[in-house]
Amino acid sequence: MAVYTDVSDEALEAFLSDYAIGNLVAFRGIAEGVENSNFQLRTTQGDFILTLYEKRVNAQELPWFLGLMQHLAGQGVSCPQPVASKAGQTLGTLAGRPAAITTFLPGVWPRKIRQEHCRPLGQALARLHEAGRSYTPIRPNALGPDAWQPLLDSCRAGADAVHPGLLAELDEAFTHILPHWPGQGTNAVLPHGQIHADLFPDNVFFLQKSVSGLIDFYFACTDFLAYDIAICLNAWCFEGDGSFNVTFGRQLLQGYESVRPLSAEERQALPVLARGASMRFLLTRLYDWINTPADALVTPKDPLDYLKRLRFHLATETVDGYGF
Amino acid sequence: MAVYTDVSDEALEAFLSDYAIGNLVAFRGIAEGVENSNFQLRTTQGDFILTLYEKRVNAQELPWFLGLMQHLAGQGVSCPQPVASKAGQTLGTLAGRPAAITTFLPGVWPRKIRQEHCRPLGQALARLHEAGRSYTPIRPNALGPDAWQPLLDSCRAGADAVHPGLLAELDEAFTHILPHWPGQGTNAVLPHGQIHADLFPDNVFFLQKSVSGLIDFYFACTDFLAYDIAICLNAWCFEGDGSFNVTFGRQLLQGYESVRPLSAEERQALPVLARGASMRFLLTRLYDWINTPADALVTPKDPLDYLKRLRFHLATETVDGYGF
Repeated sequence: MAVYTDVSDEALEAFLSDYAIGNLVAFRGIAEGVENSNFQLRTTQGDFILTLYEKRVNAQELPWFLGLMQHLAGQGVSCPQPVASKAGQTLGTLAGRPAAITTFLPGVWPRKIRQEHCRPLGQALARLHEAGRSYTPIRPNALGPDAWQPLLDSCRAGADAVHPGLLAELDEAFTHILPHWPGQGTNAVLPHGQIHADLFPDNVFFLQKSVSGLIDFYFACTDFLAYDIAICLNAWCFEGDGSFNVTFGRQLLQGYESVRPLSAEERQALPVLARGASMRFLLTRLYDWINTPADALVTPKDPLDYLKRLRFHLATETVDGYGF
Repeated sequence: MAVYTDVSDEALEAFLSDYAIGNLVAFRGIAEGVENSNFQLRTTQGDFILTLYEKRVNAQELPWFLGLMQHLAGQGVSCPQPVASKAGQTLGTLAGRPAAITTFLPGVWPRKIRQEHCRPLGQALARLHEAGRSYTPIRPNALGPDAWQPLLDSCRAGADAVHPGLLAELDEAFTHILPHWPGQGTNAVLPHGQIHADLFPDNVFFLQKSVSGLIDFYFACTDFLAYDIAICLNAWCFEGDGSFNVTFGRQLLQGYESVRPLSAEERQALPVLARGASMRFLLTRLYDWINTPADALVTPKDPLDYLKRLRFHLATETVDGYGF
């Protein structure tokens, strides 16, 4: 669930008095989400989301995230727009946590991914990238390739208990990813900019077969734009049994390129980016799997879903292997 | 959290097509609640709550609960009102579960109980009792005195590990409750009717210092009206350290009696009813504490909070001991 911190009604009233958004009408915790505590907030002026940032978010980075959302919303991207207080601040403190109020977005995230979702998703992702170009502050990707070896090292003791031979398999996989990573050594540098970096189905709202909103920008960072596509290929285009859905992938890519065509270098880099993306989610899930206490509120996700994806990407040498 | 069952968007659309409440606009899981899965549902016609009834609710009893809510709402009680489908049904099936749509209630439940909550709470409880008089179907209290001995028996093996000596203390406590229970043997029969039976703070919404809604009627039953007061005394009028807050109790009772004055027999019975109420919640919490798997979504509540209350009630011979 996504309410780690509860908020007393007195503290909430005091917090809201700093904003010019009317009087409190309703306040319910939202079950979705993993990292932060989210509440649906209704006032006499409308609906909002109240987010309390929990310990896995670095409070010093919050202005970057809120600034990005503000910027994207200003460019026409349907994403949560931070609401400024009477004093002009988008970041406050509530129940001892950094807290922000953002606009409420309509829509429903797809519990079951269908083909019809993938083209609009690709379009929305490309529009996000275009809109992010004019947001100049940089946030390096804290979960990029440099983070993977330390992450795996921290899982060394427990990895093989999760899956026999996993450690050796991942060590070997690194040799097929890291030396080939774009912009390293002799490789071409790809177009980069602001990426969402976590655009899983529960972060994409649909309404009437169109994307109505993108949420949860707290992994967003400055990285290769095509890496965001690689993340979406992993998150949206695999079946429950781990097989790649070529049709979904094609729709995603066609949707993306209808807004922002990829360069030849970006297409060529997709397989290694896809390997890297599966490695990134495999490693963080593996870390959580090993380190989550049994009584935690959030059930960790199975890292092995991403091992199947990684194996597929390792076996796919060129972009043709994806059927693009 | 309170989403045990997720609902695919296709299934949701199909379910909603049976209702004349407009088109889907938003759909979010609600973090509050323990027994069922609840979602906040927005359509082009407004806001609703969608509830999926999970296994702890007996599906055959749902028409009684929904009928009670319908009846109470018709009598002016602000409670979730079941929304009928185009076919006139208030109960449907979704994701393999019985499911119902009810109206959305404004308000915020009090995370910290203050004196100002207790009088309106008492008034709302008495109004609920008055409104329930004309709802004639009977539902016996499945967690009444007859259920306590079997519940304790099912905890015999684990009780003393939760608290040393607990089993003997509860066995002894029974002798101070069961023989004195109203309507048993020579005791007077108290006024009875429809009671909420679970009116904890998270089931009572407030807005501008008034009660704006009562929710979660799935423990409601036909029992002594004063037993509902005893449950509220336990749920609302004790401090975190287990001491009774006389002022809160007085406000609650005065609020109640401003709508429905208690008879002398009811006042006299309050201490034993309060003992019974603390026993009931102690036993179900003890059962859950012993039987909840470590990886469950819901963290069980500490049964010992109710041991402190039980001890207080056992030491309080007459209603004067409560300061009423």
